Amino acid sequence: MKILVINGVNMNMLGIREPEKYGSMTLGELEEMLKNFAAALNVELDCWHSNIEGEIVEKIQASIALYDGVVLNAGAYTHTSIAIRDAISAAKAKVVEVHMTNIHAREDFRHNSLIAPVCIGQISGFGIDSYKLGISAFALGN
Amino acid sequence: MKILVINGVNMNMLGIREPEKYGSMTLGELEEMLKNFAAALNVELDCWHSNIEGEIVEKIQASIALYDGVVLNAGAYTHTSIAIRDAISAAKAKVVEVHMTNIHAREDFRHNSLIAPVCIGQISGFGIDSYKLGISAFALGN
Amino acid sequence: MKILVINGVNMNMLGIREPEKYGSMTLGELEEMLKNFAAALNVELDCWHSNIEGEIVEKIQASIALYDGVVLNAGAYTHTSIAIRDAISAAKAKVVEVHMTNIHAREDFRHNSLIAPVCIGQISGFGIDSYKLGISAFALGN
Amino acid sequence: MKILVINGVNMNMLGIREPEKYGSMTLGELEEMLKNFAAALNVELDCWHSNIEGEIVEKIQASIALYDGVVLNAGAYTHTSIAIRDAISAAKAKVVEVHMTNIHAREDFRHNSLIAPVCIGQISGFGIDSYKLGISAFALGN
Amino acid sequence: MKILVINGVNMNMLGIREPEKYGSMTLGELEEMLKNFAAALNVELDCWHSNIEGEIVEKIQASIALYDGVVLNAGAYTHTSIAIRDAISAAKAKVVEVHMTNIHAREDFRHNSLIAPVCIGQISGFGIDSYKLGISAFALGN
Amino acid sequence: MKILVINGVNMNMLGIREPEKYGSMTLGELEEMLKNFAAALNVELDCWHSNIEGEIVEKIQASIALYDGVVLNAGAYTHTSIAIRDAISAAKAKVVEVHMTNIHAREDFRHNSLIAPVCIGQISGFGIDSYKLGISAFALGN
Amino acid sequence: MKILVINGVNMNMLGIREPEKYGSMTLGELEEMLKNFAAALNVELDCWHSNIEGEIVEKIQASIALYDGVVLNAGAYTHTSIAIRDAISAAKAKVVEVHMTNIHAREDFRHNSLIAPVCIGQISGFGIDSYKLGISAFALGN
Amino acid sequence: MKILVINGVNMNMLGIREPEKYGSMTLGELEEMLKNFAAALNVELDCWHSNIEGEIVEKIQASIALYDGVVLNAGAYTHTSIAIRDAISAAKAKVVEVHMTNIHAREDFRHNSLIAPVCIGQISGFGIDSYKLGISAFALGN
Amino acid sequence: MKILVINGVNMNMLGIREPEKYGSMTLGELEEMLKNFAAALNVELDCWHSNIEGEIVEKIQASIALYDGVVLNAGAYTHTSIAIRDAISAAKAKVVEVHMTNIHAREDFRHNSLIAPVCIGQISGFGIDSYKLGISAFALGN
Amino acid sequence: MKILVINGVNMNMLGIREPEKYGSMTLGELEEMLKNFAAALNVELDCWHSNIEGEIVEKIQASIALYDGVVLNAGAYTHTSIAIRDAISAAKAKVVEVHMTNIHAREDFRHNSLIAPVCIGQISGFGIDSYKLGISAFALGN
Amino acid sequence: MKILVINGVNMNMLGIREPEKYGSMTLGELEEMLKNFAAALNVELDCWHSNIEGEIVEKIQASIALYDGVVLNAGAYTHTSIAIRDAISAAKAKVVEVHMTNIHAREDFRHNSLIAPVCIGQISGFGIDSYKLGISAFALGN
Amino acid sequence: MKILVINGVNMNMLGIREPEKYGSMTLGELEEMLKNFAAALNVELDCWHSNIEGEIVEKIQASIALYDGVVLNAGAYTHTSIAIRDAISAAKAKVVEVHMTNIHAREDFRHNSLIAPVCIGQISGFGIDSYKLGISAFALGN
Repeated sequence: MKILVINGVNMNMLGIREPEKYGSMTLGELEEMLKNFAAALNVELDCWHSNIEGEIVEKIQASIALYDGVVLNAGAYTHTSIAIRDAISAAKAKVVEVHMTNIHAREDFRHNSLIAPVCIGQISGFGIDSYKLGISAFALGN
Repeated sequence: MKILVINGVNMNMLGIREPEKYGSMTLGELEEMLKNFAAALNVELDCWHSNIEGEIVEKIQASIALYDGVVLNAGAYTHTSIAIRDAISAAKAKVVEVHMTNIHAREDFRHNSLIAPVCIGQISGFGIDSYKLGISAFALGN
Repeated sequence: MKILVINGVNMNMLGIREPEKYGSMTLGELEEMLKNFAAALNVELDCWHSNIEGEIVEKIQASIALYDGVVLNAGAYTHTSIAIRDAISAAKAKVVEVHMTNIHAREDFRHNSLIAPVCIGQISGFGIDSYKLGISAFALGN
Repeated sequence: MKILVINGVNMNMLGIREPEKYGSMTLGELEEMLKNFAAALNVELDCWHSNIEGEIVEKIQASIALYDGVVLNAGAYTHTSIAIRDAISAAKAKVVEVHMTNIHAREDFRHNSLIAPVCIGQISGFGIDSYKLGISAFALGN
Repeated sequence: MKILVINGVNMNMLGIREPEKYGSMTLGELEEMLKNFAAALNVELDCWHSNIEGEIVEKIQASIALYDGVVLNAGAYTHTSIAIRDAISAAKAKVVEVHMTNIHAREDFRHNSLIAPVCIGQISGFGIDSYKLGISAFALGN
Repeated sequence: MKILVINGVNMNMLGIREPEKYGSMTLGELEEMLKNFAAALNVELDCWHSNIEGEIVEKIQASIALYDGVVLNAGAYTHTSIAIRDAISAAKAKVVEVHMTNIHAREDFRHNSLIAPVCIGQISGFGIDSYKLGISAFALGN
Repeated sequence: MKILVINGVNMNMLGIREPEKYGSMTLGELEEMLKNFAAALNVELDCWHSNIEGEIVEKIQASIALYDGVVLNAGAYTHTSIAIRDAISAAKAKVVEVHMTNIHAREDFRHNSLIAPVCIGQISGFGIDSYKLGISAFALGN
Repeated sequence: MKILVINGVNMNMLGIREPEKYGSMTLGELEEMLKNFAAALNVELDCWHSNIEGEIVEKIQASIALYDGVVLNAGAYTHTSIAIRDAISAAKAKVVEVHMTNIHAREDFRHNSLIAPVCIGQISGFGIDSYKLGISAFALGN
Repeated sequence: MKILVINGVNMNMLGIREPEKYGSMTLGELEEMLKNFAAALNVELDCWHSNIEGEIVEKIQASIALYDGVVLNAGAYTHTSIAIRDAISAAKAKVVEVHMTNIHAREDFRHNSLIAPVCIGQISGFGIDSYKLGISAFALGN
Repeated sequence: MKILVINGVNMNMLGIREPEKYGSMTLGELEEMLKNFAAALNVELDCWHSNIEGEIVEKIQASIALYDGVVLNAGAYTHTSIAIRDAISAAKAKVVEVHMTNIHAREDFRHNSLIAPVCIGQISGFGIDSYKLGISAFALGN
Repeated sequence: MKILVINGVNMNMLGIREPEKYGSMTLGELEEMLKNFAAALNVELDCWHSNIEGEIVEKIQASIALYDGVVLNAGAYTHTSIAIRDAISAAKAKVVEVHMTNIHAREDFRHNSLIAPVCIGQISGFGIDSYKLGISAFALGN
Repeated sequence: MKILVINGVNMNMLGIREPEKYGSMTLGELEEMLKNFAAALNVELDCWHSNIEGEIVEKIQASIALYDGVVLNAGAYTHTSIAIRDAISAAKAKVVEVHMTNIHAREDFRHNSLIAPVCIGQISGFGIDSYKLGISAFALGN
């Protein structure tokens, strides 16, 4: 099984950005840790990041030929991008949506996810463990 | 580590209720499977069910003395019960909210969770695996 | 044909409650009258009442094994209970929703019925005759 | 007792229009059947149809001199016509509102009835039986 | 100066309709009285009534060739007819909108007038005097 | 018959303010003209102006002992002052609401009048003639 | 191929109505031009107009027996008529919705089309060319 | 004079629940203190608690035969229970609504009280003194 | 302890204004009675009234140097004055908000209090006793 | 005449994406076909695609120097991009907005087009023919 | 160049009011400092304050004869006063709106400024420097 | 002090775009002028522009290491980009938001700024002087 983790806008600020909310681990360190975690579950993991909405659209379009599923943290685009939503349903990509913080406990404009209706499921609130749970969801057969 | 799984209203219909949505496993069978899953993670698991909002309130109030955390699928009360929300914050219970279906992909009135803002996180859309991921979240240290 | 009449919250106040709106017949007397009315249509009728949402949920779950249909006046829960709605669709119960007053002519918050979308139909505004029309609806083959 | 059945806009398409929703009986056949049904209840029945809002207004205005009550299926005008509502209250007509489909289970813009607040009651969801139940409501003394 | 008074839907019920709200004068009597009132102001007055929206549209279209202005009580169509609004602006008709009751003191759905933005002004709440004030407005040079 | 004309906030700018909307007549000149107009109808007229909401409240409170009615152009307070509304209903003052411009044809926030529900009627859109029509409404017996 | 062009309310004002918006061609001239345009595409064209909602409903009901498609400019009824929408879906008529002005660039209440969801497509903003493009849409095989 | 204090959902957590908001006194201690406070005012006081909505409904139904009034803190049900509202108006119970915190200064969803319109009055924000003021309200003759 | 009672707009109409709602006691008589009531509780009481929003703002600003608390019935300004709200929080004044009628049982626009979030608590619905309960709230130590 | 066809986000998925909705023709094939179609109308056609909002903005800015008009299918950016709207009005570009599906018959969030108010017109619902009709609109002289 | 600084409601609390938000400088000191700041820019500065809405209206009306521009901090009236807005447009006063705090970062009801649409521009969030920037805006030629 | 001016989407159209709104100065000329203006205040100024949301995100992320503050005109992204907002708060960048036009006086969808709550302040409406005032704000010590 081969899974792609896509990190969206501002996720390259991990470790720098509001450490009291997101911890001190950088994006590179997180990706390393997730690869190890995945390996233990016999999952091959690639990681990719972009701050640009259109590039994320294209990565999702391209992913279906190469991966069994995508773990996606689109960042703020979660709440504003119909384009990413359309990319997922156009590509019929199997996507698990993850968020480090519990978006349902934050500002109102972060409660609604435009991409949720075309994802398998949503995991939010467990810090970097949200990614691990997302990978586990695929490993469990979803 | 000792965890309590609380199933709320209509969850006793599992296996009977809309099997195309929820599968054919009964609540009893699910609870059995979850105990085995938890045991493999060194988690001791109790399971409990009620259809009555006030009883769920009281179970959550009582849980803090006995458990390290609660995996809660409140069913339809998720969307209407400020009382369960208040019970969680009054008891300062550590709760992971789970849903078998992806509530964000269903009718509008199921998108909003009144209890989410007082839970650690929310997992929705993975069928019975939502419970397993909820237990895993505690096992990972959340 | 065997039908169950379920009366929900506050319906035990019939005859006591606002007689100018609901008449002076008690719930017991109403149930007696409905049984006679049903018998004349060759319909066997049981009657049941509860003020507790979760108990109504369980009664609806249990009804499918025993009855051909349910005539349901959920009282105020009509407007607030997603749980009863889910019980009806989970049990695939055949339900006719009835109201003594014309709910569409009362306060705004009584216009919307959360259970209507999972019922066969709705009858409202005919006092105790609403129940009779509900039973007739089943007798006519609905 | 003399009752008038008014069918509003598009009801002349019965039997042609979406038979999976409305059945294969034409408006003429329905009217015939209803007259027989009414006769058995000692109710004299007239039937009338128009697609034009203003004509329905005038028929309701005229009805009070000739009928004890009106069974009204205004079709789509139910949701847009304050004029029909005003005609009913101006004429102090006794009207039972009926719908073949359960309007509360359809699109949002069909949930609200502008005429309901000035009708005795509303019956919706029982196909052609909705008319029969409407006539029965008068026969029961409403 | 030649003015046309147009009475819309249900205004033929004057004298019959809710006399406690609208008085006991019939539409014919009202028209007679208004002609006398207008004559005293050197205004020639025609009166016309229809219950059908499309006919009112056509009357307004035709009025510009024959009249210096229109006093319009569109009845319930005031709140629902974009078509009458378009007829007024298409014909560039000079229209004074009148209402017998104070529409701003009644149900919410009567507060908004779709035709007001294309009328010279609005007079509401003075019973049959609303028509007299409307005629006076033209006589004063509006 | 003795009538009081109350001009509210910014009405002292008449003749200065946006002459293309309100004409070039000053408030003093308007008051003079209205007194002459009223005299011709055997109406004794007083005129008063204030820019301060609380003073208008007090003038309305005091008016009932001295006047048969009030013609009120509250200016912008029309849309924001529950206090003036309460003053009218507390004093049971007979008030005709007038506006020079057609408020229903302007910005959305000017459509709603908080005082309309406690006034006899509303006249809007006829420039300074709106005051004349308001006085006429009293002269006609309203 | 045989197509019917239906023009709705106020479209008979073409050439008279706001020429700066709609041009100086009359409805009769437009219909003549469209017939010529259609003939060049081997399309037989009939044209019909009514200002009355119910008559448009009936024309659409009747059209399916006689035409391969309908080009419909319902005028203001576009935004208020559920009845026309129901006629289209009841008759399963193939309808292309056209507007001379770009309704999405005008007042808010003209943005929403109640009939759009039951039409093949919508063309708006090209003046009389909107009709030509509508006919072309059928000629292209839609 | 005999008064019943009803405490609703989660109020059994007093003293345990968020002491910074609700203080350290338990429900039992509060009830004791209130009885003493009432006795000093010559008021006989009973106290009762339930977490179950339907039981509160039944207690209110039963209260009218035994008490001169009810001091009710329904907890979270204040904002979600039409059933309790109906119980109060059905029983014509005299109820004073109390809240320890100022609900109008908390989250938006706590501002609205569904039961307020059928209560004598509402007291909120004075901690345990809210109950004392509620009892005093009855003692003062309300 | 020294308390100031501030009565806002229209409260000088007490005894004159709608006696069926507010009783026949004048503002002067009420103030006298409250002083006696306060004295019995060892509270020194001053009373003050204004109809002008800005003057109430200034009185609240000045009150902190002279009083231990304020009992405030702002009348209609309760629902429209952000300025009074800001005065309270700027002055850090301790304010108890009172209303004679139950504002939550009246028109929708009276449910929301703009000043509530900066007050200790709110008491509404007990007629002149609302003031007494407000004074008692301070006497109890709030 | 020289026209530019701009395809926006996800349009490179044509032929791959939901063929039941969008057909099996790829973007390259579509562009080829459109060039032929245009040539027959004596229109020179260029085609361009990007998934990135800012690049589309820049293409529109640059287009005015090189083309007589733009046929724009912005994909999902239609509903979210004020930037593209501003680019069109800043560049005073002549744009015809096209959509393959009837956006007014899809999810609510696809009904509103942010760019429509600055376009000549909108064509939606005719599959690839929407582009042809857009090119025809320019060829007809719009 | 002669500029008037108008400070509205509660601004006399500067230095007293919430110093953590507004600093410790009093209104008098602020006015002194601003005069010096203005003098350095060759701007003559007057300062004026009132807590009463109607007085601010009158000051703005009067200002046009005496000043080249107004720097206005209306305080809470910013969000509620259509009257001040009308005064500005009636007087065609050149006004720069300033706020010490960033109103767009505070409560929702402070985001909307009713006066902004008739002002040259708005400056908010720079403490007392907001006034300096407002004066600079005039000095720069706005 | 070193400041960065970021111009967002469509700002490269300055001088070309709607000169009646934005003047005839190009972006290059503006940047030159601002550098001179800044130099006079002893501020070192860099200028940068992009039309791509994700690039602006990255520039803001990078700015904190190099600049003391950012003057940001995000153009249309102001109203749609949660991503830019998150970049500012993630980077804890000190940002002054500027707009050439008074966004509060334009279309409704331009009133709300998603980035305002994380900026120091907002300046809008002074044309190119808005930038100068933004730089001055930093120079004044904000």
